[in-house]
Amino acid sequence: MAVYTDIAVEELQAYLGDYDLGELLAYKGIAEGVENSNYLLHTSRGNFILTLYEKRVAAADVPFFLSLLEHLAGRGLTCPQPIKTRKGAALGRLAGRPAAIFTFLDGMWIRRPNVAHCQGVGEALAQLHLAGLDFSLRRRNALSVDSWRALYRSAQGRADTVIAGLAEAIETELSQLETSWPHDLPEGVIHGDLFPDNVFFLDTRISGLIDFYFACTDMLAYDVAICLNAWCFEPDHSYNVTKGRALLLGYLRKRPFSDREIAALPMLCRGAALRFLLTRLVDWFATPPGALVRPKDPFEYYRKLRFHQMVADARDYGID
Amino acid sequence: MAVYTDIAVEELQAYLGDYDLGELLAYKGIAEGVENSNYLLHTSRGNFILTLYEKRVAAADVPFFLSLLEHLAGRGLTCPQPIKTRKGAALGRLAGRPAAIFTFLDGMWIRRPNVAHCQGVGEALAQLHLAGLDFSLRRRNALSVDSWRALYRSAQGRADTVIAGLAEAIETELSQLETSWPHDLPEGVIHGDLFPDNVFFLDTRISGLIDFYFACTDMLAYDVAICLNAWCFEPDHSYNVTKGRALLLGYLRKRPFSDREIAALPMLCRGAALRFLLTRLVDWFATPPGALVRPKDPFEYYRKLRFHQMVADARDYGID
Repeated sequence: MAVYTDIAVEELQAYLGDYDLGELLAYKGIAEGVENSNYLLHTSRGNFILTLYEKRVAAADVPFFLSLLEHLAGRGLTCPQPIKTRKGAALGRLAGRPAAIFTFLDGMWIRRPNVAHCQGVGEALAQLHLAGLDFSLRRRNALSVDSWRALYRSAQGRADTVIAGLAEAIETELSQLETSWPHDLPEGVIHGDLFPDNVFFLDTRISGLIDFYFACTDMLAYDVAICLNAWCFEPDHSYNVTKGRALLLGYLRKRPFSDREIAALPMLCRGAALRFLLTRLVDWFATPPGALVRPKDPFEYYRKLRFHQMVADARDYGID
Repeated sequence: MAVYTDIAVEELQAYLGDYDLGELLAYKGIAEGVENSNYLLHTSRGNFILTLYEKRVAAADVPFFLSLLEHLAGRGLTCPQPIKTRKGAALGRLAGRPAAIFTFLDGMWIRRPNVAHCQGVGEALAQLHLAGLDFSLRRRNALSVDSWRALYRSAQGRADTVIAGLAEAIETELSQLETSWPHDLPEGVIHGDLFPDNVFFLDTRISGLIDFYFACTDMLAYDVAICLNAWCFEPDHSYNVTKGRALLLGYLRKRPFSDREIAALPMLCRGAALRFLLTRLVDWFATPPGALVRPKDPFEYYRKLRFHQMVADARDYGID
């Protein structure tokens, strides 16, 4: 749910004066993304998405995201494309915030992904990684191993009120990840947040990827680990190896792992689980009880982390 | 901000199987209305609005609302029209809730209405009242004078924590309204909530009215009083008599007031101010601090009430 900033008709019309989007007919705040305010624009030229960048997205990072979307589309990936003003600018300013307008992508995200969806997302992720190989801009992953301890500290004192023993479990895991985190694996552009709500399908085919606001430069196999966490567990938090095998099959067909990536996969999966456990834990305490926007349950990622800790090697995820 | 219920693709597609709306291409929760969950549907036939009726709207009332929208459109008013299934049903059931699909209305609501907007809304309100005269269904106003004391009691103990002396001020006003509330004025269908966010404009012309979920059978002049409260005060809570005169002019040209309606206007304005003061007060306490959805400030309607209490007669509102 994300409409943090209201826009007056007059200021929106003035803003659109720089674009060739026809007459503004309607605009409505939509519940898409959690970092920014998003509006659906309906104009005489069709539907578009207007994004206002709220403070959780650093304004300095927006050009990276906009360039990346254009780069990926140039390599055949379907993702929202920034619409430019008549003067060629993709990034503007509206209601006191950095703003951009995007093409509207048809498609729907799947609430209950099946094996075929998992294979599709694996393929799409590999396509994204390959398309990003020659992208020249870099962005540090602000939510990787070197930032986890600070996140943990901010929630440490209250962690045990969520799950008994959680603080110690995180502390132990964190120390192990800090010493064992893989290095020197192939890097490139990762999506960083390719959860089901960021993948649109039409029928059984992927029609587009959205929400690149965690995209950054990091180990490509880490992005696969994030997807295994996000797509291949059942509602009871059990790992579905059939889905995992399908996701990995879809990915590896287009971009085979090196032996070192295969060996690192269990550790990368632990790291991905810890990363989402930590951010959910912080959000959990930041959200007042009874708020309309429910924070996501940290427990889910604690259970996933426990699974990964028991994994012997990458075959347990479905790599043959 | 209103998306309380998520819908899975599969259940939405199954639901749409009963309609002639073409292929579902996208759907997004939108921030429109506060009582229900609303989705924008994008299909191969265009844009539509899907509404899920949440528990604040009684399921038994939905047929009244749907019939009313059809009746008003038949009399030339532009408002969302329920789309029917192939079997002719306007009301269905989706995600465990009563559900309906509506035409998408172009237009935008005005954040800072000017005098011309006020005249336009006066005209539209009169048009609505005239169009509703021969509507056969009736619905009691659940938020009129006989329900205010119960609302007050639910917030009474904490009222003074919002504004010092508020409890006593409401108590006094309530007693006066209960004895002086007008009766036997012309009745009919009222919108009951015709605030700026429920009136769409394209350029300077009204393109449609939405959100009829407070519509009921009550005194028509009370609806005018609600609009004077909602449209004709400035951000500093001062009454703008130029806007009031314009709104009344727009209304009275199409539906002149009787002398008794003119005489009753100040009391109706007090009642309207108290009604929104009370519901905002209740919502104020029902919303946890820090919640993403900010409750509307009860103080605004306390200030408006104080203005109405000082009014000598209807001329103070701009009736000549």
